[in-house]
Amino acid sequence: MINKLAKRIQELEAPIVVGLDPMLSYVPEHIIKKAYKEKGENLEGAAEAIWLFNKGIIDAVYDLVPAVKPQVAMYEQFGIEGMRSYVRTIDYAKDKGLIVIGDVKRGDIGSTSTAYAMGHLGKISIGGVEFRGFDEDFITVNPYLGSDGILPFIEVCKQENKGLFILVKTSNPSSGEFQDKLIDGRPLYELVGEKVAEWGELFMGSEYSYIGAVVGATYPEMGKKLRRIMPKTFILVPGYGAQGGKAEDLKHFFNKDGLGAIVNSSRGIIAAYKLPQYESFGEEAYAAASRQAVLDMREDLKKACRN
Amino acid sequence: MINKLAKRIQELEAPIVVGLDPMLSYVPEHIIKKAYKEKGENLEGAAEAIWLFNKGIIDAVYDLVPAVKPQVAMYEQFGIEGMRSYVRTIDYAKDKGLIVIGDVKRGDIGSTSTAYAMGHLGKISIGGVEFRGFDEDFITVNPYLGSDGILPFIEVCKQENKGLFILVKTSNPSSGEFQDKLIDGRPLYELVGEKVAEWGELFMGSEYSYIGAVVGATYPEMGKKLRRIMPKTFILVPGYGAQGGKAEDLKHFFNKDGLGAIVNSSRGIIAAYKLPQYESFGEEAYAAASRQAVLDMREDLKKACRN
Repeated sequence: MINKLAKRIQELEAPIVVGLDPMLSYVPEHIIKKAYKEKGENLEGAAEAIWLFNKGIIDAVYDLVPAVKPQVAMYEQFGIEGMRSYVRTIDYAKDKGLIVIGDVKRGDIGSTSTAYAMGHLGKISIGGVEFRGFDEDFITVNPYLGSDGILPFIEVCKQENKGLFILVKTSNPSSGEFQDKLIDGRPLYELVGEKVAEWGELFMGSEYSYIGAVVGATYPEMGKKLRRIMPKTFILVPGYGAQGGKAEDLKHFFNKDGLGAIVNSSRGIIAAYKLPQYESFGEEAYAAASRQAVLDMREDLKKACRN
Repeated sequence: MINKLAKRIQELEAPIVVGLDPMLSYVPEHIIKKAYKEKGENLEGAAEAIWLFNKGIIDAVYDLVPAVKPQVAMYEQFGIEGMRSYVRTIDYAKDKGLIVIGDVKRGDIGSTSTAYAMGHLGKISIGGVEFRGFDEDFITVNPYLGSDGILPFIEVCKQENKGLFILVKTSNPSSGEFQDKLIDGRPLYELVGEKVAEWGELFMGSEYSYIGAVVGATYPEMGKKLRRIMPKTFILVPGYGAQGGKAEDLKHFFNKDGLGAIVNSSRGIIAAYKLPQYESFGEEAYAAASRQAVLDMREDLKKACRN
């Protein structure tokens, strides 16, 4: 799956993942109305609305980008009904040839991590027949619990040819509270990065490991350092656009082969029609605005990486 | 809710939470058969089996313990159907007067943390009507992302009179890989503990904060230290029993008022019928074995805390 990701990025010249983090406030009126009319003004109706919204975005961008990254919290907030829209989104994106990175940030220990891994990446055997729960291609995981928390995920990845992105340095302002603390003169995120590189050796693709890292676009100097510490690690980079990360900062996250990173944009793409520069599309054509935002992001990244 | 938890612990003389972490292999044959017959040998049948299993346990222990702690991974592994059993378990436990600690270990930033918090602790407004997703009383959260990840949860806790248990020092063998690293001569988990105490000030109950901590029974000396660093923090203590934590180690986690900690046991209670000392109950009476295991654990803790 990591080989497929690298290949698709090269084919499309787009190291871009579209973050499917739908807030109800992003969903245009005509979709909300349709969903509430069909399913009621309740959790089911709201979940239907975000699914229809996602479907529109996926239809508009699937030929431009290699991957989408649904943020599970945005679905979990609507309970079971929301989780159903999460599954529909994953299945539909995969049908359209997209790679799906489930942004679930799970993490526990031993058999509990195995259960998460089986539910999201693997399969479970019931009466000798195998079933799949959520079935993403990659998921994000949290490293705070150490190897006991990560190795069970890697085991399932090996069985399934799937992968992980492990949080190393997150994009938020307060990420330094713990992640930047110095240990023998070096910040914690570097130690976590080294560990990710080590875990990565356990399951290598042809050029890159199936075990990737998350490093925020908002910390380019740290990204540069981490790029060196984890040369074979694919980096998922959140924080571009709405969170303040600029394209010129992103070049540090790539290797000389032009690979090794995939940049996420959520709001900047899925709610593009609300931004001044795409306002003219109008609410009805929200998906066309998203497509244009992807095209613009692709150019922005190309320009920055050429310099 | 933290006041209710403290009160129920005193009334029942049982600082015990029963971990509802059902593996399919724990579920007795007669329940499996019933579930598969009714729902099919598939995800729905498996999810029905763990729900029926939980119901039996809850019926057998609800008058002895203040709380249960379902581990969401064990439900998530069965996809949507599993999540439905998670909701049924929560709702049923609450109907029986139990406090529900959702062991979800979620954690993200900003609006994403808010979405998790609304889904698990709060409510969401759709067309002016409020709906609840999962509706636990407490949830566990991961601190790796810093204050940006925690404060949105605390906001929702304040609105709902609900609480958190934040991971500080986890019970697993490799928890030290990052958590024990020395920062200016002090381990990371102490810094996280200090931060938890600080966050705890933001939402105090009468004696204890609504913002608790998770500290593993397997590290009693660290528990002792953390007890002092976080005097008003309720500590959720995993790792007793199956993971090797002993009752005599637990006294360090309590304050002089006999409060301040609640000890989790999962396998040791819910799969008690598989242990040599409860074998005589037999598989059919698995829930009676669980009740006896709770009674024995209560005595074990009393003895240890008297010393």
